[in-house]
Amino acid sequence: MSAEKCLAKGSAAPGPVPKDYIRVYSMRFCPFAQRTRLVLKAKGIKYETINVHLKEKPDWYLKKNPFGLVPTLETPAGEVIYESAITCEYLDEVYPEKKLLPSSPFAKAQQKMMLEHFSKVIPYFYKIPMDRKKGEDVSGPEAELKEKFAKLNEDLVNKKTKFFGGDSITMIDYMMWPWFERVEAYQVKQFLDGNPELKKWTELMLQDSAVKATMFSPDAHKAFFKTFLDGNPDFDYGL
Amino acid sequence: MSAEKCLAKGSAAPGPVPKDYIRVYSMRFCPFAQRTRLVLKAKGIKYETINVHLKEKPDWYLKKNPFGLVPTLETPAGEVIYESAITCEYLDEVYPEKKLLPSSPFAKAQQKMMLEHFSKVIPYFYKIPMDRKKGEDVSGPEAELKEKFAKLNEDLVNKKTKFFGGDSITMIDYMMWPWFERVEAYQVKQFLDGNPELKKWTELMLQDSAVKATMFSPDAHKAFFKTFLDGNPDFDYGL
Repeated sequence: MSAEKCLAKGSAAPGPVPKDYIRVYSMRFCPFAQRTRLVLKAKGIKYETINVHLKEKPDWYLKKNPFGLVPTLETPAGEVIYESAITCEYLDEVYPEKKLLPSSPFAKAQQKMMLEHFSKVIPYFYKIPMDRKKGEDVSGPEAELKEKFAKLNEDLVNKKTKFFGGDSITMIDYMMWPWFERVEAYQVKQFLDGNPELKKWTELMLQDSAVKATMFSPDAHKAFFKTFLDGNPDFDYGL
Repeated sequence: MSAEKCLAKGSAAPGPVPKDYIRVYSMRFCPFAQRTRLVLKAKGIKYETINVHLKEKPDWYLKKNPFGLVPTLETPAGEVIYESAITCEYLDEVYPEKKLLPSSPFAKAQQKMMLEHFSKVIPYFYKIPMDRKKGEDVSGPEAELKEKFAKLNEDLVNKKTKFFGGDSITMIDYMMWPWFERVEAYQVKQFLDGNPELKKWTELMLQDSAVKATMFSPDAHKAFFKTFLDGNPDFDYGL
């Protein structure tokens, strides 16, 4: 049920989504799309994947999602949902098995605030390797990312829990994980040292079945990210 | 129950929130904080307001909300919730009277996607008057804002509804309203012309009791916004 190679401009629009399935429009190496794929796997939802060429976007895709980003979900009824956090919350509401968001409004708000804080960390994962490639001094952004990692480590210490929402994996862990899967490719893995609780969290995450089912190896991420940094991302790398 | 004048650096931290009340930290002219005040009013929630000096922020405020922005909610139990969309959804979940978000996961996701689109409109409300003050050519951003307004008008035409979530006011209307209340201050009111459905929406919104209870006059917004553009915002204007 999965068309692996990405569809580019000029491709035929895919037909309706089969009954009892949900479709995710993705790009194999996109961390935002991985959020949705993690939730789909964790909840055991039947889904199919269509990969989209993010440099030469099909017109039919821009009609579904005017932002032209991944992930996007599509249902058999033709309902379209995009923006990673919105797709994940939608899936958690529609598929009641294995709830990933807490039911308490305050605990749910806390997860959303954590996500808001994490959204301020994400730009560093790109800025550091991109600036380094341009030969710029990255000591400033590196020091800032180090501080952000220390803050995340401190969160786990203060909470005395293994994961960011408690002692089992919840939504916030899946929302943050994709960037940590790629720390080697982003050349920031060394900043996990000195942050033992955060490092341990990454080790525990690697044991999760949804993480295992959606992940790429550090080498594959490195190879893809190199093509990305070179300005010519190979979305079909490894196929 | 409302300390009108804003509290600045050096002020004493307010005590616990009275039983049966919720507290909103606000700034009287802040459109993001108005979102939360609209929801509080619309749902008939008992609340008290503490206004915060956003240029000289109290240390105790930065401890509650590390972003240092408004709105922030605080409960009698000392729970703290910030980021306007998160506070509004929290209130809608905790106080079941007059639900503002739809219960259907897809309809809820649609409201969140509309909000995401609207978040791309907000910067224009500031860029246009700020660039104009600097003597820069604003025809580019003006044309873009005009296009955004036309798109919002088209949404209402396509939906054939009076409001953005149906024929009665729902969350998305309150999330967008504060910027339309300020169109004169932002010097973009003229772009409502030629967009009759959007203009009609603003007229209907002005009849809403929550809007009436939280709003300032165009003249007050203009006077405050002038002090804001001059780099010395008078948060206590009119008191």
